[in-house]
Amino acid sequence: MKTPATDYTRDPAAFSGPGPVMAIGGAEDKLKEKDILTAFWQLAGGRKAKIVVIPTASSLEDAGERYKAIFLGMGAKRADVIFLNDREDANQSASVTPIKGATGIFLTGGNQMRLAAVVAGTKVQQAVLDRHAAGAVVAGTSAGASVLSAHMVAYGSGGPVPKLRMAQLAAGFGLLNGVVIDQHFRERDSFGRLMTLVATSPSLLGIGVDEDTCALVWPDGIMDVLGRHSVTIVDGSRITSDVHRVKGHAEIAISNAIVHIVTPGRRFDTRNRTMLWPKPPRPQG
Amino acid sequence: MKTPATDYTRDPAAFSGPGPVMAIGGAEDKLKEKDILTAFWQLAGGRKAKIVVIPTASSLEDAGERYKAIFLGMGAKRADVIFLNDREDANQSASVTPIKGATGIFLTGGNQMRLAAVVAGTKVQQAVLDRHAAGAVVAGTSAGASVLSAHMVAYGSGGPVPKLRMAQLAAGFGLLNGVVIDQHFRERDSFGRLMTLVATSPSLLGIGVDEDTCALVWPDGIMDVLGRHSVTIVDGSRITSDVHRVKGHAEIAISNAIVHIVTPGRRFDTRNRTMLWPKPPRPQG
Repeated sequence: MKTPATDYTRDPAAFSGPGPVMAIGGAEDKLKEKDILTAFWQLAGGRKAKIVVIPTASSLEDAGERYKAIFLGMGAKRADVIFLNDREDANQSASVTPIKGATGIFLTGGNQMRLAAVVAGTKVQQAVLDRHAAGAVVAGTSAGASVLSAHMVAYGSGGPVPKLRMAQLAAGFGLLNGVVIDQHFRERDSFGRLMTLVATSPSLLGIGVDEDTCALVWPDGIMDVLGRHSVTIVDGSRITSDVHRVKGHAEIAISNAIVHIVTPGRRFDTRNRTMLWPKPPRPQG
Repeated sequence: MKTPATDYTRDPAAFSGPGPVMAIGGAEDKLKEKDILTAFWQLAGGRKAKIVVIPTASSLEDAGERYKAIFLGMGAKRADVIFLNDREDANQSASVTPIKGATGIFLTGGNQMRLAAVVAGTKVQQAVLDRHAAGAVVAGTSAGASVLSAHMVAYGSGGPVPKLRMAQLAAGFGLLNGVVIDQHFRERDSFGRLMTLVATSPSLLGIGVDEDTCALVWPDGIMDVLGRHSVTIVDGSRITSDVHRVKGHAEIAISNAIVHIVTPGRRFDTRNRTMLWPKPPRPQG
């Protein structure tokens, strides 16, 4: 199902308060309609957009250049790629400078452990947080999506049934709090992993984003779903489980997980943990 | 994880009220410990068991004979296989007679549509219901598990995300009411299908049984999980969805599905829809 075209264009001169955050499930369309990448470009300011691409998660040399070409092709005013090979790079002023004027920051896919290991706790991370606080949109795809949250899925295995130790957490960038984001969700059969994460950390709202799909989270916690598939939410606020009793890699018994599946065009309130269904049309008197 | 050995042996002379029902997710162990089949044999009376195997779901000639040999090998007093090729067979007295004295009835795997098409609404089905009401245990594996409920998954596709028309219902045998059973659950990635079924029929409790795993449902609605994997419960009592708004094979947005994952040795109350956690040990004063 295609999302109806929405124009998300913002004027950077009017930015006030924190910007939106886009968690993309990976494998977003880069060739045809490019709905998700277009929404990012618009949120960054459209023709006024100054975009920084951080390809640190990727081991591919040209991962950043491809996005740069796409955003310039859409009409962005600027697009820069920042190469960060190690933490020293991520503490250089030369790395931080382009971020300081950015209206949109894009984290590519790859390995979120590499992204966190190189960038977390450095001047680059602080610059990303500062720009976001000043209104810039921050998007991450695949590994870049996972790293957006304060609690990040570091690594783990797939499969529909929750097992102890099937997922490990690390500290992410903290652009979204109180959530844990998994990506390539249906494609990598990650339901069990997200259930495990939420059973182990019931304060976190689990967000599983499918490929070519985006959870666009506004500063007030309202999430729009864009793209082709859906976003699965696991709410553990009423959960009980035996995570504290089982051993090794045993399966976990879980009770009262509340699951929502949010399709494109639908909205979800991540703070109140409720689906925002459209109001039914008022009967005509 | 292995279930600790439990002796389920019942004395057929003491049967009173309806018997238990065993929904097996398919591919149950037939060679080694045979935990699930042993529990069935014990519930049927152990050495006093008179077992009838109905292999109608299967297109394999020897599907019934294999189970017969296993139950006789365990020490069952009798084991008969009833061959039913069409509805005429299923209305013959010769088919009904062995069921009349049965203490355990076993429905093999195969195609539940075939089982329902040949047996539903015939004298054989009525005889199965009568014997169950008189205390006999009724077990079904794979297709045989699906047919146990009044509302049966007839056919459908797999995949983690709910879509309209991905599962079709038909009328099953009605040994279990208010539930819908899916089998080979994790192995065929049926989460989306079960969510779709429950979103479409929110009065039904969705029960997804993994392979080599059994949902043993007692007459009071208490379910024990036996075997190797787990049983996934989808409770739609608080669900809202857009099943009535989307068209074709579109994905369905679903809110407030309550999910439980019940591992071997755990119990679930299917009537009150709650996990029955073991009571914590009382502190010693």
